[in-house]
Amino acid sequence: MSAIALLTDFGSSDWFVGSMKGVILDINPEATIVDISHHIPPGDIHAAAFSLLACYKSFPKGTIFIVVVDPTVGSSRKAIVAETENYLFVGPDNGVFSFVLKENERNMVFKIEKNSYFKKPVSKTFHGRDIFAPVGAFLSKGVIPSEIGRQKKRWVSIDWPGVEVTEGNIKGAVIYIDHFGNAFTNITEESLKIINRKEFFVTIKGKKSIPVCQYYNEAGKGKVCALINSAGYLEIAVNGGSAARRYNLAIGTTISVTSSDKI
Amino acid sequence: MSAIALLTDFGSSDWFVGSMKGVILDINPEATIVDISHHIPPGDIHAAAFSLLACYKSFPKGTIFIVVVDPTVGSSRKAIVAETENYLFVGPDNGVFSFVLKENERNMVFKIEKNSYFKKPVSKTFHGRDIFAPVGAFLSKGVIPSEIGRQKKRWVSIDWPGVEVTEGNIKGAVIYIDHFGNAFTNITEESLKIINRKEFFVTIKGKKSIPVCQYYNEAGKGKVCALINSAGYLEIAVNGGSAARRYNLAIGTTISVTSSDKI
Amino acid sequence: MSAIALLTDFGSSDWFVGSMKGVILDINPEATIVDISHHIPPGDIHAAAFSLLACYKSFPKGTIFIVVVDPTVGSSRKAIVAETENYLFVGPDNGVFSFVLKENERNMVFKIEKNSYFKKPVSKTFHGRDIFAPVGAFLSKGVIPSEIGRQKKRWVSIDWPGVEVTEGNIKGAVIYIDHFGNAFTNITEESLKIINRKEFFVTIKGKKSIPVCQYYNEAGKGKVCALINSAGYLEIAVNGGSAARRYNLAIGTTISVTSSDKI
Repeated sequence: MSAIALLTDFGSSDWFVGSMKGVILDINPEATIVDISHHIPPGDIHAAAFSLLACYKSFPKGTIFIVVVDPTVGSSRKAIVAETENYLFVGPDNGVFSFVLKENERNMVFKIEKNSYFKKPVSKTFHGRDIFAPVGAFLSKGVIPSEIGRQKKRWVSIDWPGVEVTEGNIKGAVIYIDHFGNAFTNITEESLKIINRKEFFVTIKGKKSIPVCQYYNEAGKGKVCALINSAGYLEIAVNGGSAARRYNLAIGTTISVTSSDKI
Repeated sequence: MSAIALLTDFGSSDWFVGSMKGVILDINPEATIVDISHHIPPGDIHAAAFSLLACYKSFPKGTIFIVVVDPTVGSSRKAIVAETENYLFVGPDNGVFSFVLKENERNMVFKIEKNSYFKKPVSKTFHGRDIFAPVGAFLSKGVIPSEIGRQKKRWVSIDWPGVEVTEGNIKGAVIYIDHFGNAFTNITEESLKIINRKEFFVTIKGKKSIPVCQYYNEAGKGKVCALINSAGYLEIAVNGGSAARRYNLAIGTTISVTSSDKI
Repeated sequence: MSAIALLTDFGSSDWFVGSMKGVILDINPEATIVDISHHIPPGDIHAAAFSLLACYKSFPKGTIFIVVVDPTVGSSRKAIVAETENYLFVGPDNGVFSFVLKENERNMVFKIEKNSYFKKPVSKTFHGRDIFAPVGAFLSKGVIPSEIGRQKKRWVSIDWPGVEVTEGNIKGAVIYIDHFGNAFTNITEESLKIINRKEFFVTIKGKKSIPVCQYYNEAGKGKVCALINSAGYLEIAVNGGSAARRYNLAIGTTISVTSSDKI
């Protein structure tokens, strides 16, 4: 029995997610449904793609991820099922699966075409309920992607701003801010290995210099630190506070790492 | 095995919904519990009744809906089980089931009387935990409504403001605003058939004239449109923004539809 | 099959709770996972301990509670499994289980030591995913606490401010404010029995005098009242409004109960 994990921008105040779950249970009463989040900022494809990337490997093999951050619902944008070695992904072809597909080179993408798997009538504005939820539910019952549509060789892909690496220096940016106000950057543990990891310092917007820690409480109460977080990214955090609020960090704010030898 | 769907105004910051789920699982460990929403505005019976109406048919036959928006809990207001052809509903007799019961003329309503189905001691302020959750759980195990109390011929009923139809014109109102700031009106797809649907325009408060679309992205980015939404109602939306915020829409704001021939 | 109940300060906007659920289902696909709340104020150990106390007895025997309000994650603070007659508790040794352990004198506490029950690599900042979720999942499959680590005779304990009882008077404080703006005090139904319960009045900060009710709607619409709530505490509430907002109540605000004979 596969789990079905949901990631949307539907919020939690309306019945939208409930409707999707109702549709899934109507098709597969045994489905185990898990919420990842329904608070992706409305229409924010990057945030959805990154959130999915950050958690999908924690789920059991065979999990089906339904991602509905779909600002162009009803238009000519396609609907897809993506398959990697261990997982299936259902949603719009707008880039939400980009980061997962880049991490899994052995992948296949299928169009969602066969409308016998849809809930009728299909609305123009709620494919989460009428297409993605029922397709995910049928997949959880053993329907295979190629029964739902033909393979697709191209799909929409999005990117983060890349890091700029110069001798002893990495220039990156904030790419995600979490519930605690911790700011994730696009500087990964991997990229830090390029420069001497043990002796570097971190700056915000080229000014404020920040000490490096291993965990939040290593910084004093209310103090800022930079650490490699649980998703593998360099993060700016305030112990017991919000780094985003204190330093006015936003998606795109420049964060740099400089080897101490450089000074 | 029936699903149990929960709709409340309890919010998600406290343990209230968790307590209800604990009580349900204590009675029926096999229950499949689904959240519709716990963010109905506190005490807003209209919003609860409408949210339930908008989603209940997406759920499997046999689903038990527990609705706890219950501002007069502890007073002499009654507790009921309502039964339609396909579903059961458990909650206070304050109108939360009005819209579903109007849509299902073949219905029966029962008082909740037999306190052997309650969790003791029954508090005066949390019938969600002590009455509605256990009654819903027993229903999911096969107890039938007439075992819980006697049939009731009258129940509390609430209404939306009706639409006013004159020749070539429908005057309605905003009845619900969703997470995205989309404003639902009481003007249904059905009522639009009265006037020529293909050629009409929509006005807010009799002034701002709004183009009609089929889906959000048909309007340009940041542009307003009116469309028939996934619940079957005329909706005012801004593509990628909040119509409610931009036009200061609230419950009750007048929205009119006028046939183009009228001009 | 045991239920696993989750209580954290992770919020609902990120994937953190989803990651924990993925890890649990990977170990025990049959687990029934229930959310208590993920909106404990960040790092607020008192709020977590109180929320757990207020609801744990509503859950079935054998439920495993995973509590992750863990501001010192990664430091030398210990991780524990606590066992009472009917339940198991998994989380940091920082006081989150204090109130439950005080209520259950027959208890045992075990260190979490055996890292074969962890998800590897263990991050320094997300023990919810890497330690507490997998340990909880293994417990739900029948692993017993003593297999995970040795018994521990001391653990971190926290307290509420106590009430001061003088003749005919109890001086307490606000200890929790819920979603509706209702203010819970540390004055229990038990402590009220010390003075004549039927004839007392309640004051906020020694000034504003408040009538006593049995349920919210007994006060007029928009009126304040004091009542014994569903968790057994004296609560200040406004019928249909927020007492916290109206009277500027916060954690620590003084609330007194005075026997009418005293006047």
